[in-house]
Amino acid sequence: MVGLIISGGRVALTELKECIKHLEGLEEDFLLLGVDKGIEALDLLGRRPDLVMGDFDSVDPEVLRRYQDGEVHRFQAEKDMTDTHIAFDYLRERGCKDVLLFGGTGTRWDHSLANMFLALQYEEMRIRLIDDKNLMELYVHSNETGRYRFEKCSRLTGAVYSYLSIVPTEETLIHKTIGLKYPLEEAILSPFDSYGVSNEMIGEEGEIIIGGGRGFLIQSKD
Amino acid sequence: MVGLIISGGRVALTELKECIKHLEGLEEDFLLLGVDKGIEALDLLGRRPDLVMGDFDSVDPEVLRRYQDGEVHRFQAEKDMTDTHIAFDYLRERGCKDVLLFGGTGTRWDHSLANMFLALQYEEMRIRLIDDKNLMELYVHSNETGRYRFEKCSRLTGAVYSYLSIVPTEETLIHKTIGLKYPLEEAILSPFDSYGVSNEMIGEEGEIIIGGGRGFLIQSKD
Repeated sequence: MVGLIISGGRVALTELKECIKHLEGLEEDFLLLGVDKGIEALDLLGRRPDLVMGDFDSVDPEVLRRYQDGEVHRFQAEKDMTDTHIAFDYLRERGCKDVLLFGGTGTRWDHSLANMFLALQYEEMRIRLIDDKNLMELYVHSNETGRYRFEKCSRLTGAVYSYLSIVPTEETLIHKTIGLKYPLEEAILSPFDSYGVSNEMIGEEGEIIIGGGRGFLIQSKD
Repeated sequence: MVGLIISGGRVALTELKECIKHLEGLEEDFLLLGVDKGIEALDLLGRRPDLVMGDFDSVDPEVLRRYQDGEVHRFQAEKDMTDTHIAFDYLRERGCKDVLLFGGTGTRWDHSLANMFLALQYEEMRIRLIDDKNLMELYVHSNETGRYRFEKCSRLTGAVYSYLSIVPTEETLIHKTIGLKYPLEEAILSPFDSYGVSNEMIGEEGEIIIGGGRGFLIQSKD
């Protein structure tokens, strides 16, 4: 099952709409989670969330009222975990293996970084963060090999991404890249290294084969 | 000496203008580095950079021409280091102890993260990143204690920051916080922990005393 979390940051409506259409086309089972102000984005698209959660301190009460008869998880405003953290935990408990987070980033760097970093802590789930310019996938590998395939024209979001970057938060072994302008082979990237930034897709598809490490794979529009 | 790097991301012009005014008021010696498209921001403010650097693939050639008679560091477009990386190295060589980076972040997550992470690698310099919503300071401590003081109304940028977050990239010991809504004392934050996110300034000033670790201290407007 795919979990779509719509959080209270800047939500890329065009990409979200495409993404829902894509999942419906695949007849993939998915769960729409509206988190606090993120509920408004779903409401704008005319999509009913399967579940709403949050302390509801930022969502328009008028909008929230429309979904009160469905499943509601209400938290206290002063809590140690962020809303997105609670949403990730919830999806893990539901056995969700694939998570797409919209509105996880915005103008505040603390929230944006916290959500990106948080996603690094869920080894058992595939997590992707999406905004109007970027499609970010998290990689976490102890030693086993991971293959990551990329499309220049993403079927998931409908957007065209010309750039592909590797931003490691732990030492990372890249076995090989395929279809990238600056190829890497058996390369070791140090934590926080900028060496893997701003690579480019040559054709329609690319691949990165990772031998170990942890960090971010980021597709960008321009 | 203070080094002001103006890079090619989204430059907060209001904060940049205030910042230059503030440094001039202090009669502080500072160096204005225009990096590639960042030169345009300085040009808009009518400020002549002390030095321009970059591969100059993104700056308007018309603007660049105005500064060709000054100090120019031109690099090849296809290089292993980012422009900002070269600028940091240059300032370190010049013996600069205090760096302010404008335009280090923008819509592309790969560049934004790479610049934030890069700054973690310069233990000997105090580095701050500024945009129109955030003022981020990097902390790097092996074991010695560091004291960080914060103003709600920043004299540096002229902006009002209500929130203050600690986002660690390494295990971090917080000895104490002063003037924050949710106080911390002898608290250990794990790497990438979101526990320290979205604290709030109670009064006009606050302080964080760090015993060891590495990461980001982020002041945000809202």
